[in-house]
Amino acid sequence: MSGNTTGKLYCVTSFGESHGPAIGCVVDGCPPGLQISTEDIQKELDRRKPGTSRHVTQRREPDEVEILSGVFEGVTTGTPIALLIRNQDQRSRDYGNIAETFRPGHADYAYWQKYGIRDHRGGGRSSARETAVRVAAGAIARKWLRERFGVVIRGYMAQLGPIEIPFVSWDAVHGNPFFAPNAEIVPQLEDFMDELRKAGDSIGARINVVATGVPVGWGEPVYDRLDADIAYAMMGINAVKAVEIGAGFASVTQRGTEHSDEMTPEGFLTNNAGGTLGGISTGQDIMVSMAVKPTSSIRLDRRSIDKQGKPVIVNTQGRHDPCVGIRATPIAEAMLALVLMDHALRHRAQCGEVRTSTPILAGLSPDGHQHPPSPRGE
Amino acid sequence: MSGNTTGKLYCVTSFGESHGPAIGCVVDGCPPGLQISTEDIQKELDRRKPGTSRHVTQRREPDEVEILSGVFEGVTTGTPIALLIRNQDQRSRDYGNIAETFRPGHADYAYWQKYGIRDHRGGGRSSARETAVRVAAGAIARKWLRERFGVVIRGYMAQLGPIEIPFVSWDAVHGNPFFAPNAEIVPQLEDFMDELRKAGDSIGARINVVATGVPVGWGEPVYDRLDADIAYAMMGINAVKAVEIGAGFASVTQRGTEHSDEMTPEGFLTNNAGGTLGGISTGQDIMVSMAVKPTSSIRLDRRSIDKQGKPVIVNTQGRHDPCVGIRATPIAEAMLALVLMDHALRHRAQCGEVRTSTPILAGLSPDGHQHPPSPRGE
Amino acid sequence: MSGNTTGKLYCVTSFGESHGPAIGCVVDGCPPGLQISTEDIQKELDRRKPGTSRHVTQRREPDEVEILSGVFEGVTTGTPIALLIRNQDQRSRDYGNIAETFRPGHADYAYWQKYGIRDHRGGGRSSARETAVRVAAGAIARKWLRERFGVVIRGYMAQLGPIEIPFVSWDAVHGNPFFAPNAEIVPQLEDFMDELRKAGDSIGARINVVATGVPVGWGEPVYDRLDADIAYAMMGINAVKAVEIGAGFASVTQRGTEHSDEMTPEGFLTNNAGGTLGGISTGQDIMVSMAVKPTSSIRLDRRSIDKQGKPVIVNTQGRHDPCVGIRATPIAEAMLALVLMDHALRHRAQCGEVRTSTPILAGLSPDGHQHPPSPRGE
Amino acid sequence: MSGNTTGKLYCVTSFGESHGPAIGCVVDGCPPGLQISTEDIQKELDRRKPGTSRHVTQRREPDEVEILSGVFEGVTTGTPIALLIRNQDQRSRDYGNIAETFRPGHADYAYWQKYGIRDHRGGGRSSARETAVRVAAGAIARKWLRERFGVVIRGYMAQLGPIEIPFVSWDAVHGNPFFAPNAEIVPQLEDFMDELRKAGDSIGARINVVATGVPVGWGEPVYDRLDADIAYAMMGINAVKAVEIGAGFASVTQRGTEHSDEMTPEGFLTNNAGGTLGGISTGQDIMVSMAVKPTSSIRLDRRSIDKQGKPVIVNTQGRHDPCVGIRATPIAEAMLALVLMDHALRHRAQCGEVRTSTPILAGLSPDGHQHPPSPRGE
Repeated sequence: MSGNTTGKLYCVTSFGESHGPAIGCVVDGCPPGLQISTEDIQKELDRRKPGTSRHVTQRREPDEVEILSGVFEGVTTGTPIALLIRNQDQRSRDYGNIAETFRPGHADYAYWQKYGIRDHRGGGRSSARETAVRVAAGAIARKWLRERFGVVIRGYMAQLGPIEIPFVSWDAVHGNPFFAPNAEIVPQLEDFMDELRKAGDSIGARINVVATGVPVGWGEPVYDRLDADIAYAMMGINAVKAVEIGAGFASVTQRGTEHSDEMTPEGFLTNNAGGTLGGISTGQDIMVSMAVKPTSSIRLDRRSIDKQGKPVIVNTQGRHDPCVGIRATPIAEAMLALVLMDHALRHRAQCGEVRTSTPILAGLSPDGHQHPPSPRGE
Repeated sequence: MSGNTTGKLYCVTSFGESHGPAIGCVVDGCPPGLQISTEDIQKELDRRKPGTSRHVTQRREPDEVEILSGVFEGVTTGTPIALLIRNQDQRSRDYGNIAETFRPGHADYAYWQKYGIRDHRGGGRSSARETAVRVAAGAIARKWLRERFGVVIRGYMAQLGPIEIPFVSWDAVHGNPFFAPNAEIVPQLEDFMDELRKAGDSIGARINVVATGVPVGWGEPVYDRLDADIAYAMMGINAVKAVEIGAGFASVTQRGTEHSDEMTPEGFLTNNAGGTLGGISTGQDIMVSMAVKPTSSIRLDRRSIDKQGKPVIVNTQGRHDPCVGIRATPIAEAMLALVLMDHALRHRAQCGEVRTSTPILAGLSPDGHQHPPSPRGE
Repeated sequence: MSGNTTGKLYCVTSFGESHGPAIGCVVDGCPPGLQISTEDIQKELDRRKPGTSRHVTQRREPDEVEILSGVFEGVTTGTPIALLIRNQDQRSRDYGNIAETFRPGHADYAYWQKYGIRDHRGGGRSSARETAVRVAAGAIARKWLRERFGVVIRGYMAQLGPIEIPFVSWDAVHGNPFFAPNAEIVPQLEDFMDELRKAGDSIGARINVVATGVPVGWGEPVYDRLDADIAYAMMGINAVKAVEIGAGFASVTQRGTEHSDEMTPEGFLTNNAGGTLGGISTGQDIMVSMAVKPTSSIRLDRRSIDKQGKPVIVNTQGRHDPCVGIRATPIAEAMLALVLMDHALRHRAQCGEVRTSTPILAGLSPDGHQHPPSPRGE
Repeated sequence: MSGNTTGKLYCVTSFGESHGPAIGCVVDGCPPGLQISTEDIQKELDRRKPGTSRHVTQRREPDEVEILSGVFEGVTTGTPIALLIRNQDQRSRDYGNIAETFRPGHADYAYWQKYGIRDHRGGGRSSARETAVRVAAGAIARKWLRERFGVVIRGYMAQLGPIEIPFVSWDAVHGNPFFAPNAEIVPQLEDFMDELRKAGDSIGARINVVATGVPVGWGEPVYDRLDADIAYAMMGINAVKAVEIGAGFASVTQRGTEHSDEMTPEGFLTNNAGGTLGGISTGQDIMVSMAVKPTSSIRLDRRSIDKQGKPVIVNTQGRHDPCVGIRATPIAEAMLALVLMDHALRHRAQCGEVRTSTPILAGLSPDGHQHPPSPRGE
């Protein structure tokens, strides 16, 4: 299939441009019988939507989702679920300048050379606006995973530019616009962002996502490993430049005695693996970390070229996120949900009847607390 | 398709266990007319094969490849190319112990809980022995990419445990068993490995891969981005725990003015993007970095459980790589070749007729030298 | 991918129920640069839409299509094209009866046992209403195939129940509501249908589709043969029970000397193959024939069961096509277009550079006229 | 994926040419825990292999299969199962003549124009020899379907050229080289074939295949319907030109009162649907019929062209089946098994938890006997 569909069994097909009539997606393969409403989806969309604080883009988009199909009397029927979000804020300003030049760090030049045409309004298809549909599709997956297996997926900002954010609690995440798991550090983040905005510059961030309660056994070696598909999903988010699972790059300097997670009847003793071994979930927390690059749309002058290859100076005015990482947490959670749901179904297809007498081991959460054994994944 | 096939158009289907009769793959979708011989493939296999130095496993495997189909009179016909490598070294030692326990850091426990059965001999399907077929399939892709577009794919070890390896030259890579781009540092690497082997422990490594000459325009947003597929391919290599493209995690602390690569008529001025923007190649070098975890098979005692969930002590004697990263370079190169070739074909399918009058920009190689503009990708 | 997406490179993902808010689809993989407007699509939809004569369902559906994405300033951009058709005629009549029973010959029982839930309103997802989106997606494919390669796809009704319809001319097809290629026989068809409608019964039909100008070389042996994919596409149309390529079932009684199409420098002498040999197009007309079963929704009493398995009598009042074959021609044309377009792209991906010095042979059209050689398919 | 892989979850990737070193396939996605041996597979291969009677090709091929992976201690492990069949009979005769010309009715011309190269020896990849691997892959599927659900798949020859073969019993099928379900008619078939062989000509045939015990609920509307995938699988067999499900083309002249299968608590009363409604299995027998064209390799003179487009006379000496339909029955059974198994897994993935309180209905077998309700398909 072509590049705008993701998933083998829980398949999401995305469409839409930043300033076109609408964005949306078709979710195909969802099991029947799941109760789902626009509210379930809207709730997640609202976490990602613009304009919720002064630190993100002020574009006005209510991001109201409409369910066009696949749900009957509040329940999924097993047929495709089409989700539609009309674009509201299509300011009729002059894009002529953008159309003729390529913004540094943006997809403009690559799209143009690939397709020979591009919808330049607001970045068109390459805009992060598209990620709203991922959040919508992910909302359905999250609900199913939680109700069916007790899987809980949560993310947070772990670093904002130079400021590392120590994890304090999940509760703290919801109390600030940064998704920071640490209430005390929020003023520092706000000051940093205010200064940055004033300077007209932008900054990168690190986002962590954790899935708890994932059954042992999900993932398809040797290529469609669970971690490989997670890496694909995360690197496929706009502006992401790096992905780690578990110990990640720290494993470069680790010795085997340090890295490999010992097991006892009471459970795993560490989780350097990040919940996956040989591409298959172990029942421990899936731990993912990613780098989000600084926004390329900044107010400061940058050198570039135009369509004729001539030198130009580009700067980007308007309503842009100075740190796209701030709104990335719900997107990363959604992408992890899509991958897990897809593999839940794939596992059931091939191994739905497998049972072993070996007990499921308890695991270690990133906060160092042990979590009880996950359910079997069939 | 199931998890042992990778690629949409240049499709590799892998099979085989570490100690079964054979490993191999079927390569489907290769364009007709490419001259290919067993020597072309063997040359790459020999770079990965075991036993080439004292720092890697001493298992004796000539890894001789046989072409079973798809090549006629030395030329690909467009039909599936089946490659077969018979396993030679299937020592008839007692695996009974391994069969009943789960080695920490290995896929044993996950495979067992997923499938309810496993071929435990030498790790079975989860063994890194399978990566030989990736190298074989990649050899064909590399040849086509080089002959058709001038794409050159090269990798090297950038760090061995605590020892960072400064890049000196590509030539140096071939002169040592570590694929280190730096002849001077080799004695230090050897000493480190000798000590490690004596201690019975293992160590991680960082591998970098660079593709030069990649045309602008390859990659399919929004999900099957070039970088997303690269992340999938690299994280899908045994023992890999992290993947970076371009600036990677360094982009967390970068400002927009620093990260986004400016363009001039003379070419890009930096390459923080690592050769891909919006999921599409820019014509700059594709730059990938990855973390390889320390080998889990070590001689030292580790706590684990057996099939009944009872505690056991496990240590792994035998012929194991103390650093799987040492042999990972040819594998990473091969995986990058597979992704690039797949996207070359995908691009041609959809955009084979696109031409623009905008000049192709020159790019910056990681060594800071400018490379000339790539050819068009159609 | 799941079952509501078709095509490998020109991918159509369909959604929507008969009486839900909307039906539609996402077309992913269309080459950029194709001029396309709602009018281009609407024109094809109008050929299929209900209510155009007394012989088809009187449901009022304007079937107005909206392009939501993928087209910018009248030209495809290479990004997904989302097409939306709002359902207008959602009569609020009582479906309670249908909800509790299974109509013979319908998908009701199978959907219920598969999904455990079904949107019973008007057949829900199993309604032929969904075929409108195939026509819409096919309209884009037809335009590209015609403009790029000169491929022309045309269908007609070859038999209505017992009445065989001799082919007279393509021009005749457009002059009657049956898509009959024969003006003289139309009154006979009308009388037959009037009588049938009076009786409350329904009837089957045979539809033929022909694609002229298809280049030699499209199709991917051994599984994704062009004819195999055509059979899949046609059998996948609601109510279709049989598919023939070329001589079809007549080849059972043919001898080799009769069946195999001889070649001369002037062209093929016959076309028993129906334009495909070994699963690859020959450059001759692609000739497909299919059987459309009689509508299962009839006014006459039929035995069935209800959800508890108890016997019931079912008859279907309301606005139903007494012969679904009458509106099947544009659908069959669209499905053939989807398959051909997909294989055009697939061929270009793998074999885009192939040239031979062997001349392209002229072919024979089903009307016995020779057509000139097709262009090369790259 | 490319054209030599079939199936979404039970995936078969085929390779090999008629006169190359070997043919074979990789079966990926098979559930773990199935007991399988070379004997299980060989048994099916022996039913298809050449040289078993004077009415088929006398090429000597033992078709001995080797299992290279995926089976450990006699049981499938869930990893890819590679099957290898070495070609034995690669007569070193001069193929020069064939290499320069195109045999009428063969894939020669199409392969050449598509790929610009072809392995002409014995038809290369387009040879029906490839179908052996389908039978091998199908043998595994059949075993799983039978053991897991009680599905039985059986085929027979229904017509040989002009001779219709009335169905008498399944037992009769195994007693003659034609797979004729009718012992009395065998002498007539033999006489016909002897005469045909003497004349140097060939003949078509009709093959029927029936799957009994298929659970209700398999199939994925709207595109990947069970019947659509069956049509794809059957039309994808070499020389097949037409496929019918259930009443097939007879439904053209049927009225709704005749065609649609009534239901009673005791079961379905007829089976015009051929076991599938709305693309989903009904629990009745899956009934498929197909046309196999006459062999194109005949000893009689035929007009053709050579690579330069010049006229030539072609006749084919050697060891060819005068009726490829004779050996087609095991192939058709295998292909049906592949489709059913794939959909069994796909159904379980999405609907593995669905249960209804509606009883499963009994069905009608083609011989008019009622069969008991199938098991649920999860």
